[in-house]
Amino acid sequence: MNHDKLLYAHSGGVTAVINATAAAVIRTARAQSGRIAKVYAAHRGIAGVLNEDLIDTSTLDDEAVERLARTPGGAFGSCRFDLPHDDGGRVMDRLFATFGAHRIGWLLYNGGNGSMDAVARIQAEARRRAHPLICIGVPKTVDNDIVGTDCCPGFGSAAKYVATSMLESGLDIASMVGAKGSVFVMEVMGRNTGWLAAATALAAGGDPDRPPHIVLVPEAPFDEASFLARVRSVTERLGYCTVTVSEGIRRADGGLLMEKSRDARGYVQLGGAGLAVARLIHERLGYKYHWAIPDYMQRSAGHWLSATDQAQALAVGEAAVRFALAGQGGMMPGIRRLGSEPYAWVIEAVDTAGIANLERTLPSGFIAADGLHVTPAAREYIRPLISGEVVQPVRGGLPDYRPLDWAQVPARLPPWQG
Amino acid sequence: MNHDKLLYAHSGGVTAVINATAAAVIRTARAQSGRIAKVYAAHRGIAGVLNEDLIDTSTLDDEAVERLARTPGGAFGSCRFDLPHDDGGRVMDRLFATFGAHRIGWLLYNGGNGSMDAVARIQAEARRRAHPLICIGVPKTVDNDIVGTDCCPGFGSAAKYVATSMLESGLDIASMVGAKGSVFVMEVMGRNTGWLAAATALAAGGDPDRPPHIVLVPEAPFDEASFLARVRSVTERLGYCTVTVSEGIRRADGGLLMEKSRDARGYVQLGGAGLAVARLIHERLGYKYHWAIPDYMQRSAGHWLSATDQAQALAVGEAAVRFALAGQGGMMPGIRRLGSEPYAWVIEAVDTAGIANLERTLPSGFIAADGLHVTPAAREYIRPLISGEVVQPVRGGLPDYRPLDWAQVPARLPPWQG
Repeated sequence: MNHDKLLYAHSGGVTAVINATAAAVIRTARAQSGRIAKVYAAHRGIAGVLNEDLIDTSTLDDEAVERLARTPGGAFGSCRFDLPHDDGGRVMDRLFATFGAHRIGWLLYNGGNGSMDAVARIQAEARRRAHPLICIGVPKTVDNDIVGTDCCPGFGSAAKYVATSMLESGLDIASMVGAKGSVFVMEVMGRNTGWLAAATALAAGGDPDRPPHIVLVPEAPFDEASFLARVRSVTERLGYCTVTVSEGIRRADGGLLMEKSRDARGYVQLGGAGLAVARLIHERLGYKYHWAIPDYMQRSAGHWLSATDQAQALAVGEAAVRFALAGQGGMMPGIRRLGSEPYAWVIEAVDTAGIANLERTLPSGFIAADGLHVTPAAREYIRPLISGEVVQPVRGGLPDYRPLDWAQVPARLPPWQG
Repeated sequence: MNHDKLLYAHSGGVTAVINATAAAVIRTARAQSGRIAKVYAAHRGIAGVLNEDLIDTSTLDDEAVERLARTPGGAFGSCRFDLPHDDGGRVMDRLFATFGAHRIGWLLYNGGNGSMDAVARIQAEARRRAHPLICIGVPKTVDNDIVGTDCCPGFGSAAKYVATSMLESGLDIASMVGAKGSVFVMEVMGRNTGWLAAATALAAGGDPDRPPHIVLVPEAPFDEASFLARVRSVTERLGYCTVTVSEGIRRADGGLLMEKSRDARGYVQLGGAGLAVARLIHERLGYKYHWAIPDYMQRSAGHWLSATDQAQALAVGEAAVRFALAGQGGMMPGIRRLGSEPYAWVIEAVDTAGIANLERTLPSGFIAADGLHVTPAAREYIRPLISGEVVQPVRGGLPDYRPLDWAQVPARLPPWQG
């Protein structure tokens, strides 16, 4: 029986360009219609594979795929899911039952660190079962923390957004300087890494008097005394101070400054560190305070994409199909930087077995010695990733995003008893 | 002695297009160089007039003025200041001392409701003193709450930004729907009015299944029970629910849901109502929650301006100079809507004496009967105001905003003993 379907799935938190990768997968596969009969997408990520909830993308016309490529969010749905180790292979059996029932020859799994672990394990399992499945990892995350690639699709657009937001909010608070002193704190995502926080430093461009005046990253322990001393000295000099706070900043004892909640499987939802820092400043120094938490806004800002990021999201999707057809199971298209000025990059194959579940943090050379800002090297690394704009078609003053009208693939298996 | 200087001042919170008004004032006045010798700008609003801290804008070249027109924030600084009633005329005396020392013939005061009170009182005082000063009010506020004008410059861009943010964040949370149910809450500005919150309804376009599913405005008392029931019914139907919360929502007893701080003169700083609502949902319904507070970001988003808003900000600046030269002291250029489809508007003169300190709230016809959303009439009113985009020049991936290089006007008075 010919396994001629390609299955694509989003995984984990989405980005502003994850759908660009999906669109590139669909387009590239269509150009290979002699080998790939159809592209299916899992509805809501791996849960869709387990539930046999599959979407037939062949009903999408070219215009719908073009629109998909510039729409933020995960059009086919996503979920947070770790492939279990202790279920006696029940989940793995079900995945392969779905692959078998629908003649899936290629699985393209678009996710972060955890997903690359799943890719490596599913590919190993296919070999063990002598199943023809080729499983390819496709990188995405606004956190930029995947090992084996110079950067991650999704990061550049989020970075451009938070840097722009700090630049613009900085102009606002600078207008409102009063006698009392005021602070503006912006909390950004990034989980255990400070890549997104570091991106806001592009707004200052190395000028210590321009926002952000302080950048707090999880890689540098939060020291209250030195932080407050810096806030005070900046405010006494300029009348105000602006601070970027990574959601995942920690005290020297390793404790998170703010943990919102923790789910049954131990996944910690972050959020609120910016508010905690703003209140700390107000209580200890008496300054007026404003704080912004863009939350989902920073990873879904399709109206202000980085063209470089979008190009890389398209490139990894296209490369993933090529890798799949070349039988490079267990590999992930990574981005290798050839140079920063001018910026040049290529796609290369990276073995997911060597990178799964690792986390790429800011190198120490990117963090200022006092732990309160980032270095010129950090800015130089990030600058090309936010470069270029994408003009979005607009309808009624808003970006013209429209829901996909898709066809469901009929189920062939008994319902999954999750 | 010829009073041939025009003085321009920002007042109160700034907007993404307040500098467009400033640029239009400068350009229009330059074209009248036979009558207006120079345009001065007060540094940090009325405080600059008291402190005799004045900027000579004649050193700005045309390119700098062009850049000013598209730069968010208040380039000359602003402040919150209410003209006192109980100081025995000390402040008023000082203002007129500055006007006299620098031969100010025209004062253009760009602000909100409180500023229009100042305009009316300064103009009355000029008449009483037989001082030639002509004082003109110029409207601006993201809150859209000035009486006597169909809309306020600054609102349209903030409205476009928050509507886009809800649209995009809605796509994000819709991707992440899980079994447990999840909510996204976005807090927007607006003080005692729900105009900005209402703007987010443009993202849904009247579809009850699209974000935002609930819009809470200060004009409708917050009823916890009916609100939670709606959150539950939406989440049970769709798997998630999105909520826009005005910073100034109140309970039926009139108490604010969240008051951040209150300063010596009773000015209440709002912020945190969105977090309070998100936590309430989590505690009472157990849903996973995300919340965004764009804060300054929403009123400084120069990267995503409404072209209509920018055009109106330019028009009121240009009209203010015309009114000044025509001797229409105490007047404010208001925007009158001639029609919504197609949208057409004109500038007209509005007497600030009749509108000072009033507050324009959402009309009852703009609020849904259940108080949990806004009506089609509200969307129809706001839609044209967010229309059109402005392409910003970009440098290094970020909007090309640059600080103004201005010249200080030499002081002639003894220092102000504020």
